[in-house]
Amino acid sequence: MNEKNLSMLCDFYEFTMSNGYFKNGFYKRNVYFDVFFRKVPDNGGFAIAAGLEQVISYIKNLHFSEEDISYLRTKGIFDEQFLEYLRNFKFHGDIYAVPEGTPVFPNEPVMTVRAPAIEAQMIETFVLLSINHQTLIATKANRIVRAAQGRAVLEFGSRRAQGASGAVDGARAAYIGGCAGTACTLTDELYGVPAGGTMAHSWIQMFDSEYDAFKTYCELYPDNPTLLVDTYNTLKSGVPNAIKVFKEVLLPQGKTKCAIRLDSGDISYLSKKARKMLDEAGLTDCTITASNSLDEYLIRDLMMQGAQINTFGVGERLITSSSSPVFGGVYKLVAVEDEGGEIVPKIKVSENTAKITNPHFKKLYRYYDNESGKAIADELCVYDEIVDDKKPRTIFDPLATWKTKTLTDFTAKELLVPVFKGGECVYESPSIKEIADYCAAQLDLLWDEVKRFENPHTYYVDLSKKLYEIKNILLSVYGG
Amino acid sequence: MNEKNLSMLCDFYEFTMSNGYFKNGFYKRNVYFDVFFRKVPDNGGFAIAAGLEQVISYIKNLHFSEEDISYLRTKGIFDEQFLEYLRNFKFHGDIYAVPEGTPVFPNEPVMTVRAPAIEAQMIETFVLLSINHQTLIATKANRIVRAAQGRAVLEFGSRRAQGASGAVDGARAAYIGGCAGTACTLTDELYGVPAGGTMAHSWIQMFDSEYDAFKTYCELYPDNPTLLVDTYNTLKSGVPNAIKVFKEVLLPQGKTKCAIRLDSGDISYLSKKARKMLDEAGLTDCTITASNSLDEYLIRDLMMQGAQINTFGVGERLITSSSSPVFGGVYKLVAVEDEGGEIVPKIKVSENTAKITNPHFKKLYRYYDNESGKAIADELCVYDEIVDDKKPRTIFDPLATWKTKTLTDFTAKELLVPVFKGGECVYESPSIKEIADYCAAQLDLLWDEVKRFENPHTYYVDLSKKLYEIKNILLSVYGG
Repeated sequence: MNEKNLSMLCDFYEFTMSNGYFKNGFYKRNVYFDVFFRKVPDNGGFAIAAGLEQVISYIKNLHFSEEDISYLRTKGIFDEQFLEYLRNFKFHGDIYAVPEGTPVFPNEPVMTVRAPAIEAQMIETFVLLSINHQTLIATKANRIVRAAQGRAVLEFGSRRAQGASGAVDGARAAYIGGCAGTACTLTDELYGVPAGGTMAHSWIQMFDSEYDAFKTYCELYPDNPTLLVDTYNTLKSGVPNAIKVFKEVLLPQGKTKCAIRLDSGDISYLSKKARKMLDEAGLTDCTITASNSLDEYLIRDLMMQGAQINTFGVGERLITSSSSPVFGGVYKLVAVEDEGGEIVPKIKVSENTAKITNPHFKKLYRYYDNESGKAIADELCVYDEIVDDKKPRTIFDPLATWKTKTLTDFTAKELLVPVFKGGECVYESPSIKEIADYCAAQLDLLWDEVKRFENPHTYYVDLSKKLYEIKNILLSVYGG
Repeated sequence: MNEKNLSMLCDFYEFTMSNGYFKNGFYKRNVYFDVFFRKVPDNGGFAIAAGLEQVISYIKNLHFSEEDISYLRTKGIFDEQFLEYLRNFKFHGDIYAVPEGTPVFPNEPVMTVRAPAIEAQMIETFVLLSINHQTLIATKANRIVRAAQGRAVLEFGSRRAQGASGAVDGARAAYIGGCAGTACTLTDELYGVPAGGTMAHSWIQMFDSEYDAFKTYCELYPDNPTLLVDTYNTLKSGVPNAIKVFKEVLLPQGKTKCAIRLDSGDISYLSKKARKMLDEAGLTDCTITASNSLDEYLIRDLMMQGAQINTFGVGERLITSSSSPVFGGVYKLVAVEDEGGEIVPKIKVSENTAKITNPHFKKLYRYYDNESGKAIADELCVYDEIVDDKKPRTIFDPLATWKTKTLTDFTAKELLVPVFKGGECVYESPSIKEIADYCAAQLDLLWDEVKRFENPHTYYVDLSKKLYEIKNILLSVYGG
């Protein structure tokens, strides 16, 4: 979170390579890197792009301090002129990215960096780290939110997060993915994600009785208090005491909004029993929150069993995306400019064909069917191609070129928007609420088949004919 | 990493509870919280405590700024006198903790906090977050290091870490757990964990040929360069070019230390073939580094197959502990002081007996067999008990009390050391190298059976007779 220090949050090889680029003059040469991923966590059908705002703030603050330079000098391998260069280092390049909250698919760029070689190289680690982390959590949060079928999901995981920014930025990403709020106070203060929370078991233990603890709490916070009912015995003690206190403290004030929280035991069974007890006591406005090792799979099962839960508090399995805790975004060189400024496409071949990169400086189009409004395919084009959605367009699967589809009544939208131009930020990040709303709206444009948890439909990410041909030429040269 | 802001990195309920404690006078009452965990990640036999240094720095910097107070005021639920109290907030309590690098076991305190109620409550989230995160990574790193059987393991995962502190503090924890170094430059600058790194595929792609890229690199860094050999074709192009360049550039300078790095393909096969090619070329000092989706399971298999690897670079599966990405440390109230200063033990019962807490302010002893030097059991005692290791001591399993063992020739060591007393730090953190060395030495005192990957022997964590009896009395009162 200390913006300054993050300039040094980069793999050491960025410095060894940059020192080399500096010495051989490459540092003036513009290069193009794409950020893309190959696989959606949890075998899902799509990911939700997030983490751009932190990249922007990182790039704006990018610099090396005297301490950083002195530290690097102790390594004894860097040229003094290179260290002098770093002293005045700033980013002069262009960055294009998909807006946060956009559903994205494997093998398409979610960001493209065009910058002098050293600058493009130096930002690799942080760019990947921020996008990988927040995209992972936004994607996971959305799975959990979909499983909850309209019931609120709250992010509760700070204490199990992988480090401070794991908690703070993770809660931000969870909100982008559809969570209604977080327990993390700092995420609210920094980013405006609504934070809330009521009591831990220690509150109840601190009092002589559970009843006293509940009563004191409701007297203090009579507006929609949530009481944690499982400290001693949920059905024998917790729920009866909660009912008693709600009746004694809230109802006389004319307040009926309140909640109980279940944090252990069999949530399905306990929620049904508790619902019955609350309803029989006339507390039909009292809602039930559940919060014990939940994720999309358990929530789906609880919903199928008719568990009486209004709000899900989700902790460690969301904030670490524990069933699939890595988002594998990569940063690959796709082109370099030669001395004349000509863009020369580059490819990284691999014995594993799925790992071969899509070369060149590219555009990313998403095509929407005008009748249904739904997204039907994405297409990667060379930077100078223009898609005219007034004309029919035939797209094809790059791994099975005989599979073609001709789009007629469609709208084409470019997904990569300018974020930096010549080192200046030209993009204003929307508010976190706007990002979350945009995300929800974009998800409505995906077919349900793409959103299925198990074996989702593979959304089409195709290459334009021009790009496909360039890729094949490069493969024939370097693929041997 | 911004120390100031981390004061607000806490669950919102810490504020709602604290406001309540403030209003009812509990804030002056000293309470005791234990940090402990119930399960070792990856079903391992032990964890390695880490994260204390960041807790110390957090506690020292704990305070709320005017912005923080203003933010809290906007919530409309906090008493002005409470907000005024927060303005002057500082930690006045005592903290005891096991030193970083200590092997620790389920259900024993790795930290005990004694402080006025609000102060003890307010630090919960960050204390758990730091200890959970770094203990997770140190524990995972050690598994990977053990699998590598003496070969160096380097931490390479920043780009896939869950946020900036996930990368930086994670690399610190990995070093505590036995890694030889990291790729994360900032972890070196901040903590002194040796950082290193050479080149990405982009370095090679930037040049007209792989040979040119290798040659330029070796001319620049002739001292033990590592060349990445899989950009085009490992055995047909990468290794032959590396051999050529090593011979042309290094040998004439009388340098023989160098390395190649394999980052894709079948590491076992490629390493054996590459080793043969290097040896046949007379480059017997050239080592082989492997770095493709490794973890302890894959490394164990590679070792069994005789893969010719000298150094393992481990990325995402280490920095996220991907096969078991959550460390479930909890923060539980174990005692409160009454108005007379008497310590009253507290218990949290649960329908799940494994979740019942060990009450009271405690000491944690580790017993070492004098003959073998090995650790044989840990014992939790009440704070005022003194274990005399000159006398025989009978310990028993708290879940199966008929299982007893009498220790005769043993040494008792107290594991929890004072870290804060009356709000002042009384503990000097060792250097990161000292912590890593201490960890390695402590691990030598564990039996191999406890270190097994699959079904490790369950190390004994027993309760003293006095503590056992107190627990049972509390259970008979609250367990109904």
